[in-house]
Amino acid sequence: MDNRPIGVFDSGLGGLTAVKELRTILPNEQIVYFGDTGRVPYGTRSVKTIEKYAAQDIRFLSSMDIKLVIAACGTVSSVAPHVGMAIQLPFIGVVDPASKAAAAATKTGRVGVIGTTATIKSKAFDKALHTLNPDIQVFSRECPLFVPLVESGWFRKDDEIAKLTARRYLIPLREEKIDTLILGCTHFPLLWDVIHEVMGPEVALINTGCEAAHTAAALLREKDALGERPAPGACRFFVSDSIDGFQRLAGILLGSEESLDVRQVDIDSTAC
Amino acid sequence: MDNRPIGVFDSGLGGLTAVKELRTILPNEQIVYFGDTGRVPYGTRSVKTIEKYAAQDIRFLSSMDIKLVIAACGTVSSVAPHVGMAIQLPFIGVVDPASKAAAAATKTGRVGVIGTTATIKSKAFDKALHTLNPDIQVFSRECPLFVPLVESGWFRKDDEIAKLTARRYLIPLREEKIDTLILGCTHFPLLWDVIHEVMGPEVALINTGCEAAHTAAALLREKDALGERPAPGACRFFVSDSIDGFQRLAGILLGSEESLDVRQVDIDSTAC
Repeated sequence: MDNRPIGVFDSGLGGLTAVKELRTILPNEQIVYFGDTGRVPYGTRSVKTIEKYAAQDIRFLSSMDIKLVIAACGTVSSVAPHVGMAIQLPFIGVVDPASKAAAAATKTGRVGVIGTTATIKSKAFDKALHTLNPDIQVFSRECPLFVPLVESGWFRKDDEIAKLTARRYLIPLREEKIDTLILGCTHFPLLWDVIHEVMGPEVALINTGCEAAHTAAALLREKDALGERPAPGACRFFVSDSIDGFQRLAGILLGSEESLDVRQVDIDSTAC
Repeated sequence: MDNRPIGVFDSGLGGLTAVKELRTILPNEQIVYFGDTGRVPYGTRSVKTIEKYAAQDIRFLSSMDIKLVIAACGTVSSVAPHVGMAIQLPFIGVVDPASKAAAAATKTGRVGVIGTTATIKSKAFDKALHTLNPDIQVFSRECPLFVPLVESGWFRKDDEIAKLTARRYLIPLREEKIDTLILGCTHFPLLWDVIHEVMGPEVALINTGCEAAHTAAALLREKDALGERPAPGACRFFVSDSIDGFQRLAGILLGSEESLDVRQVDIDSTAC
């Protein structure tokens, strides 16, 4: 038994898709979330900058007496997992959980991966999939417009610009006849319906935030480190930009209209 | 006569549209450019964060023994001009120069302004236009997707997504029968053809970077502070993220294929 909270972070608010799943499967756990809204997006930045930001994010969460860190960020998980592996706490990124789910789901061995520019360049999902099954063929595509589309609220099924953008990015993957597609960025599940419509019903979509949440739950169970508080666990949210506007988008990502406990922190000055 | 360089900064590379114009009208001036590519975009962030970033950018440029600072950034010019006005050096933003050009260009007194979310929320262009002419009617619209579209290279005249995005943002302005439109972000001139096609030939487009460059030239002439070096002035470029990828986009913005002198700096640690 371990009643300390679970720490979750992302470059922005996409990681809340993992928090949503955690709250469903482990409702009694406390969660501390950090979203680096003052420096989002990470996916267009260099490896060194992403490493520095990841180290600051993890340092901040580690100061909150947590029991586990989830990098609910495709970019950090792909580009800078070593930053997380170097800490004393258990660390879970999204690459291994989502790759395991994809390797289990594919029947044809043709798996697609979409993510930010940095994620796709890192080839982290390709390596993880090939470690699981060397016969899997990976087809990947960077989708840098998806994050700003989500943040603009242009992600609904009937949005012409979202549909056209998804077609431009995804039709080449559809033509490769993949049967499984990893949404390698935690923002992308908001575009689920749009992506599903382009890819067709025969392509399984893998939600990286959900898979990371399930891996975290399994690890805590295995270590006998689940929380045992009777009440539903409290969630505290921290962001690096103003808290204005957080509630609206966070509500969409969490699928909830509750009032959230959110505070701003100065992440730039966090020593690594 | 003053042979010190002109300092120019932007949240990213959009400010190079001002540098391009400076190099045309003042070819012998030296220029030091800083692009905050590690923290771009500014336009979706809070006022406090923009103020902090602007102070760090100006502090960095001021350390380079320059004679003038141009904030070639619509967001900083709109939200945090006081940060620039507080320094010892002459400071030029894009709001006043572009507003003067628009007030001179409009015949009907119906002027449109497009910019980032922070720029439009600040109402800085509205205030500047009303100071120049209280009878001008201002119609403004935030266009947060334009910066990522430009940075994705999706800005050409025949790009369906750029056209559809421009129509969604601009048709309400066209319906207001404006005759002048301020492109209140220095990235937006890359979308010139797309914007022109939506607005029609009767609407004058105002390029903020160009107007700021002309105002800087006039100020230096008035102060007898133009450079008098015989050779074409050298340009030095600094960015806060990796220099990889800078050359390609910078070349498009500068309209030049020359090899550029570019270095990376750690802007987070610049004391304000």
